[in-house]
Amino acid sequence: MTATTEAAALTPAGALTPAGGVTSAEHVNAAVEAAQTAFEQGRQADPNQRAAWLEAIASGLEQDAAALVEIAVRETHLGPARLEGELKRTVFQLRLFADEIRLGEHFDATIDHADPAWGMGPRPDLRRYNVPLGVVGVFGASNFPFAFSVMGGDSASALAAGGAVVHKAHDAHRELAARTARTVTSALEAAGAPSGLFSLVTGRQAGEALVDHPLVKAIGFTGSTAGGRALLNRIAARPEPIPFFGELGGINAVFVTGKAWAARREEILTGYAGSFTLGMGQFCTKPGLLFVPAGQAAETRGQLEKALAGVAPARLLSERLHAGYADAVRGLRDSGGVDVLVEGDFAEAPAPTVLRTTAAAVRKNPDILRQEMFGPASLVVEYGDESELPGLAGLLEGQLTTTLQAEEDDDVTELAARLTDISGRVLWNGWPTGVTVSYAQHHGGPYPATTSATTSVGTAAIRRFLRPVAFQSFPASRLPEPLQDGNPWDVPQRVDGVWRRPSGARHEQTSGKEDQR
Amino acid sequence: MTATTEAAALTPAGALTPAGGVTSAEHVNAAVEAAQTAFEQGRQADPNQRAAWLEAIASGLEQDAAALVEIAVRETHLGPARLEGELKRTVFQLRLFADEIRLGEHFDATIDHADPAWGMGPRPDLRRYNVPLGVVGVFGASNFPFAFSVMGGDSASALAAGGAVVHKAHDAHRELAARTARTVTSALEAAGAPSGLFSLVTGRQAGEALVDHPLVKAIGFTGSTAGGRALLNRIAARPEPIPFFGELGGINAVFVTGKAWAARREEILTGYAGSFTLGMGQFCTKPGLLFVPAGQAAETRGQLEKALAGVAPARLLSERLHAGYADAVRGLRDSGGVDVLVEGDFAEAPAPTVLRTTAAAVRKNPDILRQEMFGPASLVVEYGDESELPGLAGLLEGQLTTTLQAEEDDDVTELAARLTDISGRVLWNGWPTGVTVSYAQHHGGPYPATTSATTSVGTAAIRRFLRPVAFQSFPASRLPEPLQDGNPWDVPQRVDGVWRRPSGARHEQTSGKEDQR
Repeated sequence: MTATTEAAALTPAGALTPAGGVTSAEHVNAAVEAAQTAFEQGRQADPNQRAAWLEAIASGLEQDAAALVEIAVRETHLGPARLEGELKRTVFQLRLFADEIRLGEHFDATIDHADPAWGMGPRPDLRRYNVPLGVVGVFGASNFPFAFSVMGGDSASALAAGGAVVHKAHDAHRELAARTARTVTSALEAAGAPSGLFSLVTGRQAGEALVDHPLVKAIGFTGSTAGGRALLNRIAARPEPIPFFGELGGINAVFVTGKAWAARREEILTGYAGSFTLGMGQFCTKPGLLFVPAGQAAETRGQLEKALAGVAPARLLSERLHAGYADAVRGLRDSGGVDVLVEGDFAEAPAPTVLRTTAAAVRKNPDILRQEMFGPASLVVEYGDESELPGLAGLLEGQLTTTLQAEEDDDVTELAARLTDISGRVLWNGWPTGVTVSYAQHHGGPYPATTSATTSVGTAAIRRFLRPVAFQSFPASRLPEPLQDGNPWDVPQRVDGVWRRPSGARHEQTSGKEDQR
Repeated sequence: MTATTEAAALTPAGALTPAGGVTSAEHVNAAVEAAQTAFEQGRQADPNQRAAWLEAIASGLEQDAAALVEIAVRETHLGPARLEGELKRTVFQLRLFADEIRLGEHFDATIDHADPAWGMGPRPDLRRYNVPLGVVGVFGASNFPFAFSVMGGDSASALAAGGAVVHKAHDAHRELAARTARTVTSALEAAGAPSGLFSLVTGRQAGEALVDHPLVKAIGFTGSTAGGRALLNRIAARPEPIPFFGELGGINAVFVTGKAWAARREEILTGYAGSFTLGMGQFCTKPGLLFVPAGQAAETRGQLEKALAGVAPARLLSERLHAGYADAVRGLRDSGGVDVLVEGDFAEAPAPTVLRTTAAAVRKNPDILRQEMFGPASLVVEYGDESELPGLAGLLEGQLTTTLQAEEDDDVTELAARLTDISGRVLWNGWPTGVTVSYAQHHGGPYPATTSATTSVGTAAIRRFLRPVAFQSFPASRLPEPLQDGNPWDVPQRVDGVWRRPSGARHEQTSGKEDQR
């Protein structure tokens, strides 16, 4: 079965993708208009119905797992174990989001009763909750063909919010995209969701038409800084600006203190080697910089070579990425003050490369710290004294993650503050690859890590696709359910400044734990 | 005392505003750098300290009220009673925000303990809370010289969030801006806040330098659509994009059903006349459109003339606004299908004008519905049948508010849904002027009402100037207070999916009411 015929099966009536698998602007328009209609129908659903749609998608993906993984292995060169794990994560995410919207946290329901004695003057009855933005355009990433692609975090959170999704397939896994989309639309149809709530378009022009469409109210994107910036600029030129939730990747600097280096050098280098080569280094959270004390290059090289010997090279996601990877590594290697610590190669399945530089060199040319090498390469930066570290951190641009490798009694207060300033997530004695989907997760960070202050992973991602609306002096019978005094959906409500959360069972079900307070 | 000498007193050392009262780019840079330093010092403060700073500002403004109002009356031509009320609102807002940050709601503290049994695979300890963005540039509005200007909602919420503020004074009330800023900086200094946490710059070039400055991390703006769009475009051209929270005003359409018109025509027209002339119509929430059943133009004119007879004309805020007002009214009056229902004038203190058009005319030229007349004028649109109303609502652009004037048994479900789609706030049998500061308030709305999905009024406005950061596997002793298991600041924490809110006293103090659940 080809991508084209798959794709033809899932766009709404009248929007069939023609042979060649590239969606025309007219067909994008039809898909967006169908999504708008589905959005307007679908938002009548209560949280239980919507949650059931997400769970239907989850079950559909599980049932189709074998076929999906088989296609993914072929198209992405990622291994089956990794892809099975990624699909499990994707399915888990849908179910967690279903739980979350059943709880009603995302409504942020807030009720201020009329108050004649309110401090600035009499207050009318005023109630606010969050409503979905509408149709969301989602651009998938090549490196996570399940978790950040067709039914990844952006699509799942947009649907959970109550929106409709038109997904622009990534060219690096078009057959998988089409198959996933078919599975999703079949599951939604069987679950009774409105037709057109999710659809897929393909090709660069389709992506541009999607971004430009007046009915599209937000864009989710995971990809390169260059690609993201181009989309951001395109959105800025729209008559109506819309939010652009772009996750553009990053460098993910790791700082090792002198004490940690002395105590755990081998463990740290082994962890580093494992993390920067995971998935052949094609993670936006790959540790691309390791700051270590100067003076032990030979030992470091030896330990890295030993750790990297266990890495079985694999092909990169696409030929385009392979070429970009080789260019990036060569470009950085040829920068002044940079040399090779561990010699890799640029074979079809490339052996990992570790470059080396010094604090002095990066102070002279901070651009050295800002070059993403998307693949199995990383840069070790040797510093002379720990007091340099906050200043070195200050040379970094915004990061998805930064990591401290430190001992319990290290004084890293200032460094930790600098890292908090530039990061979405700060880790202590861990490795940034591996992004759990949970309530507290924040997969974001200052530009150029992302283009917003939001997260693209975890339950908080749902909020991106909502906007608040207030209702003033509405009759009780005309208020949306989350804002009714009777609270028929049993959602958390902040009433006159005081949160009232449904007690007991439903919340405990979600966490699987007792509230110990 | 002149604006210039006032201004000279309040910028940080080295950033004195030269004679003429226009701040140079160099001085803007000094103010922003001082703000950054103050931000870094100030964020060490706990919520009680920060709340005390806000309260100190509130008390300072109260103590200086007589002088402030005297200058405001002279510069803005708004009456003393209105300005006293507006100052009261401004002071109240600061105290409400102080209460809110003491509660710690804004941290959104979320704790996921490590969980080896987490559904997608073992979960590390992960904790997230909100940190301030940093230095915020705020552009004040001319029409609310207290509540949306120097220490209005944007400045108050940015300071509450933990940021520092550099305020660009509005040219229409420069002396007031300087005096207010001096009061604020004196109060902050006396309360022990870091120097430079708030400062004022003046002049158009200073505003541009502020928007361009790399240390400025967000912009708050209240003003015209044209001015806001120009700033938005300027921000889009920055190397690092930043959020632009622009409140650009709106039309605030009011829809009257046939039954409401039959039952309460006089009351509705009286309320309308009072609302669209309040503050000489210089409110972003002024009802600029009134949709009514066709066929009673003479009676409508008569009742409006009667109601408007009670309005004492006053001068508009500035000559520039006066000229713009006259142009806007004349332009709309001369549109095809528009005529004059109540003849006003364009005297120095203009008499109100009411224009009239028909549903047919606006369907032919929807631009008629999109012309803001900033001053005491409004447009009555006559419709033939109520079934036209949802379609007419669909011709509107994004609105800060829309209003339904309807009877209890009217079928307005579809119309209400359309209004929710395009509005920040929907009112039932009220008038949109008058925006209470509370927990549930949402003063926002789709573009061009604003440039974001946020509110510029109410406690939710604080969230705009925060961003989340997650900490993974951090030692307990190194976690920020809101994320510690011991919860030393007694803030709400979502722990493993379950919210745990401090019980009792503090929350009850805020609302002044018992939690009845």
